[in-house]
Amino acid sequence: MRKVAIAGVGHTPFTFAAEKSSVELFAEAAMDAITESGLTSKDVQAIYLGNVLGDFSEGQAMVQSYIADDIGATNVPATRFEGACASASLAIRDAFMWVASGFYDIVLAGGVETSAKMGTPLATRTFAMCHDAHYEYPVGLTFPGFFAMLAHLYTSKYGVSLDRLKHQMAQVSVQSHKYGIHNKYAQFQKEITVDDVLKGFMVCSPLQLLDCCPFSDGAAAMIIASEDVAKRLTDRPVYITGIGQASSGKLSAQKDYAPRIRAREVSAKQAYDMAGIGPDDVDVCELHDCFSIASIIAAESLGFAEFGKGGELWETGQADRGGKVAINISGGLKSKGHPIGATGASQVVDIVHQMRGQVEPERQVEDVKIGLTDTLGGDGVLCNMVLQKGW
Amino acid sequence: MRKVAIAGVGHTPFTFAAEKSSVELFAEAAMDAITESGLTSKDVQAIYLGNVLGDFSEGQAMVQSYIADDIGATNVPATRFEGACASASLAIRDAFMWVASGFYDIVLAGGVETSAKMGTPLATRTFAMCHDAHYEYPVGLTFPGFFAMLAHLYTSKYGVSLDRLKHQMAQVSVQSHKYGIHNKYAQFQKEITVDDVLKGFMVCSPLQLLDCCPFSDGAAAMIIASEDVAKRLTDRPVYITGIGQASSGKLSAQKDYAPRIRAREVSAKQAYDMAGIGPDDVDVCELHDCFSIASIIAAESLGFAEFGKGGELWETGQADRGGKVAINISGGLKSKGHPIGATGASQVVDIVHQMRGQVEPERQVEDVKIGLTDTLGGDGVLCNMVLQKGW
Repeated sequence: MRKVAIAGVGHTPFTFAAEKSSVELFAEAAMDAITESGLTSKDVQAIYLGNVLGDFSEGQAMVQSYIADDIGATNVPATRFEGACASASLAIRDAFMWVASGFYDIVLAGGVETSAKMGTPLATRTFAMCHDAHYEYPVGLTFPGFFAMLAHLYTSKYGVSLDRLKHQMAQVSVQSHKYGIHNKYAQFQKEITVDDVLKGFMVCSPLQLLDCCPFSDGAAAMIIASEDVAKRLTDRPVYITGIGQASSGKLSAQKDYAPRIRAREVSAKQAYDMAGIGPDDVDVCELHDCFSIASIIAAESLGFAEFGKGGELWETGQADRGGKVAINISGGLKSKGHPIGATGASQVVDIVHQMRGQVEPERQVEDVKIGLTDTLGGDGVLCNMVLQKGW
Repeated sequence: MRKVAIAGVGHTPFTFAAEKSSVELFAEAAMDAITESGLTSKDVQAIYLGNVLGDFSEGQAMVQSYIADDIGATNVPATRFEGACASASLAIRDAFMWVASGFYDIVLAGGVETSAKMGTPLATRTFAMCHDAHYEYPVGLTFPGFFAMLAHLYTSKYGVSLDRLKHQMAQVSVQSHKYGIHNKYAQFQKEITVDDVLKGFMVCSPLQLLDCCPFSDGAAAMIIASEDVAKRLTDRPVYITGIGQASSGKLSAQKDYAPRIRAREVSAKQAYDMAGIGPDDVDVCELHDCFSIASIIAAESLGFAEFGKGGELWETGQADRGGKVAINISGGLKSKGHPIGATGASQVVDIVHQMRGQVEPERQVEDVKIGLTDTLGGDGVLCNMVLQKGW
């Protein structure tokens, strides 16, 4: 298989209610990625797109086909992927394979979502369909409920008091907002304190408002190309050197393993092994902080901390710039925003910007060589990617 | 790239309202494919699944993850594809690439749908979201309307009288039912006459009831494996030797080309060229007869007839067994049924059964060496595959 690189990227602002449609938003990100790569739409051989709730937010299924036409990539194969929040990551992983295999040289991958414009109540309800629809959703489970249960389980399983865990969770959100305020694409550009988090209204005990990421509208895209082509297009290619994906069953099938999510451990191992690296090699990580507790759980499964000690990364500054691994310096889902079908692509774009030294100075991590993305779809689709600086 | 084969297949009955859920239906087809291949669920390295309206029919998104767990393929990567009616074909084409590239040796691909249990009115409304949601759906366009317009355009563009075209269209449906009655998986097992079609109630002029396929519930699945592995698993591997995919934009972008669908011509050429064959080499074809006019239009773009003369294939028996190319001997979408996210997989399964001599005697085509599938998603996602007998 050939080496595969990212030649150019694009990213719209993440907002509460985009005036643009999914086609328009993705076209904006896509044209930026295409233009940055020195290409035109006619060079794109195929499109790989993540989108989850477009059927509900815009009454638009099969959106990939209209996107291909809209950007002028006439008649190219265009495929939509749905794996809840991990949809764009699945699309990118797939695009990787079509280029690695030698079938295509230049493809466009990414994701788009406009679920925020539905409003949080309807978005929460429709998004909860990514739970098991027959045994979990009917008993009232939505994603805040799922992660709240994990938080409670975390305390009993690891002997961490709820007060301490809540304080750790608050620090996760505080760090995300500290960087989101400097990210020009971020939905929330507001600094918060631990007190703000702990005094917020209760969403689902123990998760309070500022433990929860928002629904967002936005898109992110990238040109994925073979090594040879990428080197011609840019002197700053970012290689995708490791990919991983795994899935889980319904919650009852996960109960013995929870609060760990086994699919993440399987997926992360695939990505690390393929890249020939380990967690200690990772300079920056964009992980799936849909809820603050989710960050702590993710950091452990990715190998950045022992189980039960993930929160200490944020307590001690080890998840910050200059720490062991710089986590969610984009602002993460919490502050940058979470347009579910686009999130995985947004994570990749921010790491590419970090490697190129293109992020705002206040959130630039020095000398980023290796990045890791971690995207969790619902409570069961996991996708990880290792990115390496190619210059 | 390696040669890729289908080692085993599975297919549920297609019905009006399945008692089973999508997970249960796909599991049934999948376990048949796995067992027929002499494998167990633990041998499956990844799952590629087509599903379109599961969010509406069952309130279940991300269904692939629950399927993986349900069949015991614990933690394997499982990906959902949405390209309207072509969803399963996109999934299979993608599975092909992951095996062809050498990344996986054994994967499961297919599709499932339970839209019939919603009832035709709601299924028609929700499925119409695969049109352009911003400019077409709001003016009242649903798929019967789209294909009805193509039929009218066909008469004026090719100088075929509406009476003659309606007679040709009726013959398409009559042939499909002639074979569907013998297909144990078919939803309609009832013979019909040209008179029955022409006396049916008008759905959308000129399409009458029996010009239209039904919504259906059902699933189809297959084990896709590398050549080496497939040869160990079966002495009757069917090779996927050509794949094609293309997309179209909204109707206004297609108007100069209609009633031809350019994406089909692009996609079919890709599949033919890759396989090194042409339309004259095809023994059996399962093409996308969502409406009788769609069969005529498809047959022309696939190269079986000159433009404007597709209907003559059915008038003269050239689309029947013993004719130029045996089309939709499964009963097609019209009689076998159309569980939208599963249809592409069902087309492949029937051709595999034809090659093995496993279909009912009344619809067995002699000496099938080369088969072609043609799946149209909405009015804009096209996927074609060439299948070749490997023994």
